[in-house]
Amino acid sequence: MPFINIKIAGELSRDQKKQIVEEITDTMGRVANKPKQYVIVNFDETPEENWGWGGALLDGNG
Amino acid sequence: MPFINIKIAGELSRDQKKQIVEEITDTMGRVANKPKQYVIVNFDETPEENWGWGGALLDGNG
Amino acid sequence: MPFINIKIAGELSRDQKKQIVEEITDTMGRVANKPKQYVIVNFDETPEENWGWGGALLDGNG
Amino acid sequence: MPFINIKIAGELSRDQKKQIVEEITDTMGRVANKPKQYVIVNFDETPEENWGWGGALLDGNG
Amino acid sequence: MPFINIKIAGELSRDQKKQIVEEITDTMGRVANKPKQYVIVNFDETPEENWGWGGALLDGNG
Amino acid sequence: MPFINIKIAGELSRDQKKQIVEEITDTMGRVANKPKQYVIVNFDETPEENWGWGGALLDGNG
Repeated sequence: MPFINIKIAGELSRDQKKQIVEEITDTMGRVANKPKQYVIVNFDETPEENWGWGGALLDGNG
Repeated sequence: MPFINIKIAGELSRDQKKQIVEEITDTMGRVANKPKQYVIVNFDETPEENWGWGGALLDGNG
Repeated sequence: MPFINIKIAGELSRDQKKQIVEEITDTMGRVANKPKQYVIVNFDETPEENWGWGGALLDGNG
Repeated sequence: MPFINIKIAGELSRDQKKQIVEEITDTMGRVANKPKQYVIVNFDETPEENWGWGGALLDGNG
Repeated sequence: MPFINIKIAGELSRDQKKQIVEEITDTMGRVANKPKQYVIVNFDETPEENWGWGGALLDGNG
Repeated sequence: MPFINIKIAGELSRDQKKQIVEEITDTMGRVANKPKQYVIVNFDETPEENWGWGGALLDGNG
């Protein structure tokens, strides 16, 4: 706690996840005054076909 | 925003996702007065084994 | 199941919620072949101050 | 309704899911006075690489 | 981690929340082999008007 | 998309939310290569009584 869930279209590399976790944990610790050991981040990676935006699927195939 | 997350047991075809996105976006635009370009839909497809209902798993194998 | 969570900035009237539930349930039943009695919809209404888009808060006060 | 979402690092066996669903449904029925047939449980299993805790990824590879 | 989110129509007393947290933490520790100190539970209480089931709002006013 | 949901015990000030949105949007743009205009952040603030950690409620009243 806090618990941060990141839903993203497509996939991230392990290095991207590692850096995002480091930066968001730093942000939550510094700005929200939450001890870093209590900051939890979770990634949900789903294919672009599973996203709609403005009425169309994100995968862009019509 | 609005953000609509749909959790479903099993999988949908791309055509089903496309039509659901079109219809829900239309509903949110027309009923909730939200511009269509701001309506986001995200599907989470998980196996029936990952659902419990009334105390039993949905996959029905005892 | 399916479970549909709608996160929205601001509030909806009861009539808007009622119509959205009717239309989304109809969509899920007709397009995804899910029995209507199993379609669940849940609204999360949060103030515009609790939304960020493109790096700024939605409430538009700088 | 109630709807219980369980996010977990790694995977559970079907037997573990079955027992967790039974026990949580019993808890919600007995403590929260909700009819068991309305208790829904959903599992999200994601790899340890998709979890950050205290600023580091859970998979422990530096 | 694990992270358990409980969405419920209406409100629970503090005693109900306390007992549910105790029991679910016990279940996750015993059945899923997760150390109890890593089990997090979060309650989302929303009014019955914010729930649709089978195409109608849960608050039952037509 | 990406969609970032932040669940937090207690409340944040508007200034804290503003800065968190700015920093997380910057992180997602720079590290995940997502255009900033597509980064959405949503805060769920719930009372400490609604959080369990390690089997006890976060509000610490026994």
